[in-house]
Amino acid sequence: MTAKAVVLLSGGLDSATTLAIASDEGYACHALSINYGQRHAIELSAAISIAELLKVREHKILTVDLTQIGGSALTDTAIAVPEQSTTGIPATYVPARNTILLALALAYAEAAQAFDIYIGVNAVDYSGYPDCRPEFIAAFEHTARLATRAGVEGGDFHIHTPLLQLNKAEIIKSGLKLGVDYALTVSCYQADTAGRACRYCDACRIRAAGFQAAGVTDPTLYIR
Amino acid sequence: MTAKAVVLLSGGLDSATTLAIASDEGYACHALSINYGQRHAIELSAAISIAELLKVREHKILTVDLTQIGGSALTDTAIAVPEQSTTGIPATYVPARNTILLALALAYAEAAQAFDIYIGVNAVDYSGYPDCRPEFIAAFEHTARLATRAGVEGGDFHIHTPLLQLNKAEIIKSGLKLGVDYALTVSCYQADTAGRACRYCDACRIRAAGFQAAGVTDPTLYIR
Repeated sequence: MTAKAVVLLSGGLDSATTLAIASDEGYACHALSINYGQRHAIELSAAISIAELLKVREHKILTVDLTQIGGSALTDTAIAVPEQSTTGIPATYVPARNTILLALALAYAEAAQAFDIYIGVNAVDYSGYPDCRPEFIAAFEHTARLATRAGVEGGDFHIHTPLLQLNKAEIIKSGLKLGVDYALTVSCYQADTAGRACRYCDACRIRAAGFQAAGVTDPTLYIR
Repeated sequence: MTAKAVVLLSGGLDSATTLAIASDEGYACHALSINYGQRHAIELSAAISIAELLKVREHKILTVDLTQIGGSALTDTAIAVPEQSTTGIPATYVPARNTILLALALAYAEAAQAFDIYIGVNAVDYSGYPDCRPEFIAAFEHTARLATRAGVEGGDFHIHTPLLQLNKAEIIKSGLKLGVDYALTVSCYQADTAGRACRYCDACRIRAAGFQAAGVTDPTLYIR
Protein backbone atom coordinates (compact mmCIF):
# COMPACT_ATOMS: atom_id res chain seq x y z
CA MET A 1 0.00 0.00 0.00
CA THR A 2 1.27 3.44 -0.84
CA ALA A 3 2.30 5.37 2.27
CA LYS A 4 0.23 8.46 2.96
CA ALA A 5 1.51 11.95 3.69
CA VAL A 6 -0.29 15.04 4.89
CA VAL A 7 0.85 18.12 3.00
CA LEU A 8 0.10 21.63 4.24
CA LEU A 9 -1.10 23.50 1.16
CA SER A 10 -1.63 27.25 1.47
CA GLY A 11 -1.96 27.87 -2.25
CA GLY A 12 1.32 29.74 -2.51
CA LEU A 13 4.41 28.94 -4.54
CA ASP A 14 6.28 27.10 -1.79
CA SER A 15 3.49 24.80 -0.64
CA ALA A 16 2.56 23.93 -4.25
CA THR A 17 6.15 22.89 -4.87
CA THR A 18 6.20 20.94 -1.62
CA LEU A 19 3.09 19.01 -2.67
CA ALA A 20 4.68 18.18 -6.03
CA ILE A 21 7.80 16.91 -4.24
CA ALA A 22 5.83 14.78 -1.76
CA SER A 23 3.91 13.27 -4.64
CA ASP A 24 7.14 12.66 -6.59
CA GLU A 25 8.61 10.96 -3.52
CA GLY A 26 5.83 8.39 -3.84
CA TYR A 27 3.34 9.40 -1.17
CA ALA A 28 -0.42 9.34 -1.52
CA CYS A 29 -0.98 12.98 -0.63
CA HIS A 30 -3.65 14.30 1.71
CA ALA A 31 -3.59 18.06 1.34
CA LEU A 32 -4.63 20.29 4.24
CA SER A 33 -5.46 23.97 3.83
CA ILE A 34 -6.39 26.27 6.68
CA ASN A 35 -8.73 29.21 6.40
CA TYR A 36 -7.43 31.17 9.37
CA GLY A 37 -8.96 34.48 8.40
CA GLN A 38 -5.94 35.49 6.37
CA ARG A 39 -6.24 38.73 4.46
CA HIS A 40 -5.36 36.86 1.28
CA ALA A 41 -8.01 34.13 1.64
CA ILE A 42 -8.05 33.95 -2.15
CA GLU A 43 -5.02 31.68 -1.72
CA LEU A 44 -7.49 28.95 -0.69
CA SER A 45 -8.99 28.98 -4.18
CA ALA A 46 -5.47 28.58 -5.49
CA ALA A 47 -4.98 25.64 -3.11
CA ILE A 48 -8.05 23.92 -4.56
CA SER A 49 -6.75 24.36 -8.13
CA ILE A 50 -3.30 23.05 -7.22
CA ALA A 51 -4.70 20.07 -5.32
CA GLU A 52 -6.68 19.17 -8.46
CA LEU A 53 -3.72 19.69 -10.80
CA LEU A 54 -1.47 17.49 -8.69
CA LYS A 55 -4.18 14.86 -8.15
CA VAL A 56 -4.15 14.60 -4.36
CA ARG A 57 -6.01 11.69 -2.81
CA GLU A 58 -7.94 14.03 -0.51
CA HIS A 59 -8.05 17.74 0.27
CA LYS A 60 -9.44 19.08 3.53
CA ILE A 61 -9.98 22.74 4.31
CA LEU A 62 -10.36 23.58 7.99
CA THR A 63 -11.39 26.93 9.40
CA VAL A 64 -10.04 28.53 12.57
CA ASP A 65 -10.66 32.22 12.93
CA LEU A 66 -7.37 33.78 14.03
CA THR A 67 -8.75 37.27 13.44
CA GLN A 68 -10.23 36.82 16.93
CA ILE A 69 -6.64 36.74 18.15
CA GLY A 70 -5.05 39.18 15.71
CA GLY A 71 -1.52 40.44 16.28
CA SER A 72 -0.53 40.33 12.59
CA ALA A 73 -1.01 42.31 9.41
CA LEU A 74 -2.47 39.13 7.92
CA THR A 75 -5.17 38.67 10.57
CA ASP A 76 -5.88 42.26 11.60
CA THR A 77 -6.81 44.61 8.77
CA ALA A 78 -5.91 47.57 11.01
CA ILE A 79 -2.23 46.59 10.65
CA ALA A 80 -0.84 47.46 7.20
CA VAL A 81 1.15 44.98 5.10
CA PRO A 82 4.67 46.43 4.74
CA GLU A 83 5.51 47.34 1.13
CA GLN A 84 9.22 47.79 1.66
CA SER A 85 11.92 45.62 3.16
CA THR A 86 12.01 45.95 6.96
CA THR A 87 14.50 44.82 9.58
CA GLY A 88 13.60 42.08 12.04
CA ILE A 89 10.51 39.92 11.96
CA PRO A 90 7.90 41.71 9.81
CA ALA A 91 4.31 42.65 10.72
CA THR A 92 3.05 39.80 8.56
CA TYR A 93 4.28 37.31 11.15
CA VAL A 94 1.18 35.53 12.53
CA PRO A 95 1.52 34.47 16.19
CA ALA A 96 2.20 30.73 16.40
CA ARG A 97 0.83 30.11 12.92
CA ASN A 98 3.07 27.23 11.92
CA THR A 99 2.58 25.59 15.32
CA ILE A 100 -1.18 25.70 14.73
CA LEU A 101 -0.86 24.46 11.14
CA LEU A 102 1.42 21.59 12.14
CA ALA A 103 -0.81 20.66 15.09
CA LEU A 104 -3.81 20.37 12.74
CA ALA A 105 -1.71 18.44 10.22
CA LEU A 106 -0.64 16.09 13.02
CA ALA A 107 -4.27 15.44 13.96
CA TYR A 108 -5.13 14.73 10.33
CA ALA A 109 -2.09 12.50 9.93
CA GLU A 110 -2.84 10.49 13.04
CA ALA A 111 -6.49 9.99 12.09
CA ALA A 112 -5.50 8.97 8.54
CA GLN A 113 -2.67 6.71 9.76
CA ALA A 114 -0.01 8.79 8.06
CA PHE A 115 3.35 9.43 9.67
CA ASP A 116 4.73 11.90 7.19
CA ILE A 117 3.88 15.59 7.18
CA TYR A 118 5.18 18.04 4.59
CA ILE A 119 5.46 21.79 5.14
CA GLY A 120 6.99 24.27 2.70
CA VAL A 121 9.04 26.32 5.13
CA ASN A 122 12.19 27.90 3.83
CA ALA A 123 15.05 29.47 5.72
CA VAL A 124 16.86 31.11 2.78
CA ASP A 125 14.60 33.42 0.74
CA TYR A 126 12.11 34.06 3.53
CA SER A 127 10.77 36.76 5.76
CA GLY A 128 12.59 35.84 8.94
CA TYR A 129 9.66 34.12 10.62
CA PRO A 130 10.83 32.16 13.69
CA ASP A 131 8.58 29.22 12.88
CA CYS A 132 10.35 28.60 9.57
CA ARG A 133 13.64 27.69 11.25
CA PRO A 134 14.99 24.13 11.38
CA GLU A 135 15.24 24.19 15.18
CA PHE A 136 11.52 24.90 15.42
CA ILE A 137 10.69 22.05 13.05
CA ALA A 138 12.89 19.63 15.02
CA ALA A 139 11.22 20.66 18.28
CA PHE A 140 7.75 20.17 16.81
CA GLU A 141 8.69 16.76 15.42
CA HIS A 142 9.84 15.67 18.87
CA THR A 143 6.61 17.02 20.39
CA ALA A 144 4.50 15.17 17.78
CA ARG A 145 5.92 11.81 18.79
CA LEU A 146 5.06 12.45 22.45
CA ALA A 147 1.65 14.01 21.74
CA THR A 148 -0.07 11.14 20.02
CA ARG A 149 -1.38 7.65 20.50
CA ALA A 150 0.36 6.70 17.27
CA GLY A 151 3.62 8.03 18.70
CA VAL A 152 3.21 6.11 21.96
CA GLU A 153 2.56 2.97 19.95
CA GLY A 154 5.89 3.39 18.19
CA GLY A 155 4.86 5.43 15.15
CA ASP A 156 7.60 7.73 14.07
CA PHE A 157 6.29 11.06 12.80
CA HIS A 158 8.49 12.93 10.37
CA ILE A 159 8.10 16.57 9.42
CA HIS A 160 9.50 16.91 5.91
CA THR A 161 10.79 20.32 4.86
CA PRO A 162 12.12 19.76 1.34
CA LEU A 163 12.49 23.50 0.63
CA LEU A 164 14.28 24.38 3.83
CA GLN A 165 17.71 25.08 2.34
CA LEU A 166 16.71 25.99 -1.24
CA ASN A 167 16.68 29.51 -2.58
CA LYS A 168 13.57 30.72 -4.39
CA ALA A 169 15.03 30.10 -7.87
CA GLU A 170 15.86 26.52 -6.95
CA ILE A 171 12.36 26.00 -5.59
CA ILE A 172 10.83 27.29 -8.82
CA LYS A 173 13.07 25.10 -11.00
CA SER A 174 12.19 22.01 -8.90
CA GLY A 175 8.50 22.71 -9.18
CA LEU A 176 8.57 23.32 -12.93
CA LYS A 177 10.28 19.96 -13.46
CA LEU A 178 7.48 18.30 -11.49
CA GLY A 179 4.66 19.98 -13.40
CA VAL A 180 3.66 22.78 -11.03
CA ASP A 181 1.79 25.55 -12.82
CA TYR A 182 2.81 28.64 -10.88
CA ALA A 183 0.16 30.71 -12.61
CA LEU A 184 -2.30 28.89 -10.34
CA THR A 185 -0.49 29.90 -7.13
CA VAL A 186 -1.06 33.04 -5.08
CA SER A 187 1.74 34.32 -2.84
CA CYS A 188 0.76 37.96 -2.35
CA TYR A 189 -0.29 38.93 1.16
CA GLN A 190 -2.84 41.37 -0.18
CA ALA A 191 -3.95 39.77 -3.41
CA ASP A 192 -7.29 41.00 -4.73
CA THR A 193 -10.32 38.76 -5.05
CA ALA A 194 -9.19 37.75 -8.54
CA GLY A 195 -5.90 36.54 -7.08
CA ARG A 196 -3.91 39.41 -8.62
CA ALA A 197 -0.77 40.38 -6.73
CA CYS A 198 0.28 43.76 -5.33
CA ARG A 199 3.93 43.50 -6.48
CA TYR A 200 5.24 45.29 -3.35
CA CYS A 201 4.78 43.10 -0.28
CA ASP A 202 7.55 40.81 0.96
CA ALA A 203 5.94 37.75 -0.58
CA CYS A 204 5.64 39.46 -4.00
CA ARG A 205 9.18 40.80 -3.96
CA ILE A 206 10.78 37.49 -2.95
CA ARG A 207 8.67 35.62 -5.51
CA ALA A 208 9.43 37.98 -8.43
CA ALA A 209 13.16 37.91 -7.65
CA GLY A 210 12.97 34.10 -7.67
CA PHE A 211 11.50 33.94 -11.16
CA GLN A 212 14.11 36.42 -12.38
CA ALA A 213 16.99 34.46 -10.82
CA ALA A 214 15.62 31.22 -12.26
CA GLY A 215 15.47 32.82 -15.73
CA VAL A 216 11.80 31.97 -15.97
CA THR A 217 8.99 34.26 -17.09
CA ASP A 218 7.00 35.36 -14.06
CA PRO A 219 3.42 34.11 -14.65
CA THR A 220 2.00 36.25 -11.82
CA LEU A 221 -0.88 38.58 -12.61
CA TYR A 222 -0.32 41.94 -10.97
CA ILE A 223 -2.89 44.57 -10.03
CA ARG A 224 -0.65 47.38 -11.23
CA MET B 1 0.94 45.83 35.95
CA THR B 2 -0.53 42.44 36.71
CA ALA B 3 1.00 39.72 34.55
CA LYS B 4 -1.41 38.02 32.17
CA ALA B 5 -1.97 34.32 31.72
CA VAL B 6 -3.91 32.40 29.11
CA VAL B 7 -5.91 29.58 30.69
CA LEU B 8 -7.40 26.78 28.61
CA LEU B 9 -10.94 26.39 29.89
CA SER B 10 -12.98 23.45 28.63
CA GLY B 11 -15.75 23.81 31.17
CA GLY B 12 -14.84 20.62 33.03
CA LEU B 13 -13.77 20.12 36.61
CA ASP B 14 -10.03 20.19 35.97
CA SER B 15 -9.88 23.32 33.84
CA ALA B 16 -12.19 25.22 36.22
CA THR B 17 -9.83 24.38 39.08
CA THR B 18 -6.86 25.38 36.96
CA LEU B 19 -8.42 28.76 36.26
CA ALA B 20 -9.04 29.32 39.98
CA ILE B 21 -5.41 28.44 40.72
CA ALA B 22 -4.03 30.77 38.01
CA SER B 23 -6.18 33.57 39.38
CA ASP B 24 -5.08 32.80 42.95
CA GLU B 25 -1.47 32.90 41.78
CA GLY B 26 -2.04 36.53 40.82
CA TYR B 27 -2.47 36.45 37.07
CA ALA B 28 -4.96 38.47 35.09
CA CYS B 29 -6.62 35.53 33.37
CA HIS B 30 -7.52 35.32 29.70
CA ALA B 31 -9.62 32.21 29.29
CA LEU B 32 -9.63 30.31 26.01
CA SER B 33 -12.24 27.71 25.12
CA ILE B 34 -12.27 25.72 21.91
CA ASN B 35 -15.36 24.49 20.15
CA TYR B 36 -13.75 21.62 18.26
CA GLY B 37 -16.95 19.80 17.45
CA GLN B 38 -16.86 17.79 20.66
CA ARG B 39 -19.83 15.57 21.34
CA HIS B 40 -20.27 17.32 24.70
CA ALA B 41 -20.31 20.88 23.35
CA ILE B 42 -22.53 21.78 26.30
CA GLU B 43 -19.25 22.07 28.21
CA LEU B 44 -18.77 25.40 26.43
CA SER B 45 -21.82 26.82 28.23
CA ALA B 46 -20.23 25.61 31.46
CA ALA B 47 -17.01 27.38 30.46
CA ILE B 48 -18.90 30.65 30.06
CA SER B 49 -20.49 30.31 33.52
CA ILE B 50 -17.14 29.49 35.15
CA ALA B 51 -15.35 32.35 33.41
CA GLU B 52 -18.00 34.70 34.80
CA LEU B 53 -17.85 33.20 38.29
CA LEU B 54 -14.09 33.51 38.44
CA LYS B 55 -14.08 36.99 36.89
CA VAL B 56 -11.65 36.47 34.03
CA ARG B 57 -10.37 39.55 32.25
CA GLU B 58 -11.35 38.15 28.87
CA HIS B 59 -12.84 34.94 27.50
CA LYS B 60 -12.41 33.91 23.89
CA ILE B 61 -14.12 30.96 22.24
CA LEU B 62 -12.55 29.74 19.01
CA THR B 63 -14.03 27.19 16.65
CA VAL B 64 -12.10 24.57 14.71
CA ASP B 65 -14.12 21.69 13.36
CA LEU B 66 -12.23 18.51 14.21
CA THR B 67 -15.21 16.38 13.17
CA GLN B 68 -13.79 16.85 9.67
CA ILE B 69 -10.79 14.86 10.90
CA GLY B 70 -12.52 12.46 13.30
CA GLY B 71 -10.65 9.51 14.74
CA SER B 72 -12.22 9.81 18.21
CA ALA B 73 -15.44 8.99 20.01
CA LEU B 74 -15.62 12.69 20.88
CA THR B 75 -15.45 13.94 17.30
CA ASP B 76 -17.08 11.09 15.38
CA THR B 77 -20.57 10.12 16.55
CA ALA B 78 -20.16 6.76 14.81
CA ILE B 79 -17.61 5.79 17.49
CA ALA B 80 -19.27 4.99 20.84
CA VAL B 81 -18.06 6.47 24.12
CA PRO B 82 -16.85 3.52 26.26
CA GLU B 83 -18.98 3.04 29.39
CA GLN B 84 -16.60 0.68 31.13
CA SER B 85 -12.97 0.84 32.01
CA THR B 86 -10.76 -0.20 29.08
CA THR B 87 -7.08 -0.99 28.78
CA GLY B 88 -4.76 1.27 26.85
CA ILE B 89 -5.62 4.68 25.45
CA PRO B 90 -9.42 4.90 25.17
CA ALA B 91 -11.55 5.75 22.14
CA THR B 92 -12.18 9.21 23.59
CA TYR B 93 -8.60 10.19 22.80
CA VAL B 94 -8.77 13.00 20.19
CA PRO B 95 -5.83 13.00 17.78
CA ALA B 96 -3.37 15.76 18.72
CA ARG B 97 -6.01 17.64 20.72
CA ASN B 98 -3.77 19.10 23.38
CA THR B 99 -1.20 20.08 20.78
CA ILE B 100 -3.92 22.01 18.94
CA LEU B 101 -5.26 23.57 22.15
CA LEU B 102 -1.80 24.63 23.29
CA ALA B 103 -0.92 25.99 19.85
CA LEU B 104 -4.03 28.20 19.90
CA ALA B 105 -3.28 29.24 23.50
CA LEU B 106 0.24 30.13 22.42
CA ALA B 107 -1.07 32.35 19.62
CA TYR B 108 -3.44 34.07 22.04
CA ALA B 109 -0.68 34.50 24.63
CA GLU B 110 1.76 35.97 22.14
CA ALA B 111 -0.81 38.42 20.76
CA ALA B 112 -1.82 39.45 24.31
CA GLN B 113 1.80 39.69 25.49
CA ALA B 114 1.34 36.92 28.01
CA PHE B 115 4.06 34.36 28.68
CA ASP B 116 2.16 32.06 30.97
CA ILE B 117 -0.23 29.39 29.75
CA TYR B 118 -2.24 27.16 32.09
CA ILE B 119 -3.63 23.77 31.12
CA GLY B 120 -5.42 21.37 33.46
CA VAL B 121 -3.72 18.15 32.42
CA ASN B 122 -3.38 15.48 35.03
CA ALA B 123 -1.29 12.33 35.00
CA VAL B 124 -2.77 10.60 38.07
CA ASP B 125 -6.58 10.20 37.83
CA TYR B 126 -6.75 10.40 34.09
CA SER B 127 -7.60 8.39 31.01
CA GLY B 128 -4.09 7.64 29.83
CA TYR B 129 -4.01 10.23 27.08
CA PRO B 130 -0.44 10.71 25.78
CA ASP B 131 -0.82 14.47 25.60
CA CYS B 132 -1.41 14.74 29.35
CA ARG B 133 2.09 13.50 30.20
CA PRO B 134 4.80 15.77 31.61
CA GLU B 135 7.22 14.89 28.81
CA PHE B 136 4.72 16.13 26.24
CA ILE B 137 4.21 19.39 28.11
CA ALA B 138 7.98 19.94 28.38
CA ALA B 139 8.40 19.31 24.65
CA PHE B 140 5.64 21.76 23.79
CA GLU B 141 7.09 24.42 26.06
CA HIS B 142 10.44 24.10 24.29
CA THR B 143 8.69 24.31 20.92
CA ALA B 144 6.78 27.42 22.01
CA ARG B 145 9.96 29.34 22.72
CA LEU B 146 11.32 28.53 19.26
CA ALA B 147 8.01 29.09 17.45
CA THR B 148 7.36 32.69 18.29
CA ARG B 149 8.60 36.21 17.77
CA ALA B 150 8.21 36.74 21.52
CA GLY B 151 10.41 33.70 22.14
CA VAL B 152 13.10 34.90 19.73
CA GLU B 153 13.06 38.27 21.48
CA GLY B 154 13.85 36.54 24.79
CA GLY B 155 10.33 35.94 26.12
CA ASP B 156 10.20 32.80 28.18
CA PHE B 157 6.94 30.92 27.74
CA HIS B 158 5.88 28.68 30.60
CA ILE B 159 3.23 26.00 30.39
CA HIS B 160 1.78 25.67 33.89
CA THR B 161 0.21 22.34 34.84
CA PRO B 162 -0.82 22.81 38.47
CA LEU B 163 -2.91 19.62 38.53
CA LEU B 164 -0.32 17.36 36.97
CA GLN B 165 0.52 15.32 40.06
CA LEU B 166 -2.70 15.74 42.05
CA ASN B 167 -5.31 13.05 42.41
CA LYS B 168 -8.94 13.95 41.70
CA ALA B 169 -9.84 14.39 45.38
CA GLU B 170 -6.95 16.81 45.86
CA ILE B 171 -8.02 18.75 42.77
CA ILE B 172 -11.57 19.06 44.12
CA LYS B 173 -10.40 20.18 47.56
CA SER B 174 -8.11 22.82 46.00
CA GLY B 175 -10.91 24.15 43.86
CA LEU B 176 -13.43 24.33 46.67
CA LYS B 177 -11.00 26.38 48.77
CA LEU B 178 -10.70 28.81 45.86
CA GLY B 179 -14.42 29.20 45.31
CA VAL B 180 -15.04 26.91 42.36
CA ASP B 181 -18.68 25.86 42.07
CA TYR B 182 -18.43 22.39 40.60
CA ALA B 183 -22.16 22.32 39.95
CA LEU B 184 -21.37 24.65 37.05
CA THR B 185 -18.84 22.29 35.48
CA VAL B 186 -19.54 19.55 32.94
CA SER B 187 -17.11 16.64 32.66
CA CYS B 188 -19.25 13.97 31.02
CA TYR B 189 -18.27 13.02 27.47
CA GLN B 190 -21.88 12.51 26.50
CA ALA B 191 -23.70 15.05 28.64
CA ASP B 192 -27.16 15.96 27.41
CA THR B 193 -28.09 19.44 26.24
CA ALA B 194 -29.01 20.38 29.82
CA GLY B 195 -25.49 19.44 30.92
CA ARG B 196 -26.65 16.31 32.76
CA ALA B 197 -24.06 13.54 33.00
CA CYS B 198 -24.28 9.89 31.91
CA ARG B 199 -22.60 8.48 35.03
CA TYR B 200 -20.83 5.73 33.08
CA CYS B 201 -18.14 7.22 30.84
CA ASP B 202 -14.51 7.51 31.98
CA ALA B 203 -14.89 11.19 32.79
CA CYS B 204 -18.00 10.55 34.93
CA ARG B 205 -16.49 7.62 36.79
CA ILE B 206 -13.22 9.40 37.61
CA ARG B 207 -15.11 12.53 38.68
CA ALA B 208 -17.60 10.71 40.94
CA ALA B 209 -14.81 8.73 42.59
CA GLY B 210 -13.00 12.02 43.22
CA PHE B 211 -15.95 13.57 45.06
CA GLN B 212 -16.33 10.41 47.10
CA ALA B 213 -12.62 10.28 48.02
CA ALA B 214 -12.71 13.97 48.92
CA GLY B 215 -15.69 13.37 51.22
CA VAL B 216 -17.67 15.99 49.35
CA THR B 217 -21.23 15.69 48.09
CA ASP B 218 -21.19 15.21 44.31
CA PRO B 219 -23.12 18.18 42.84
CA THR B 220 -23.35 16.57 39.41
CA LEU B 221 -26.77 16.22 37.82
CA TYR B 222 -27.13 12.81 36.25
CA ILE B 223 -29.47 11.74 33.46
CA ARG B 224 -30.25 8.44 35.20
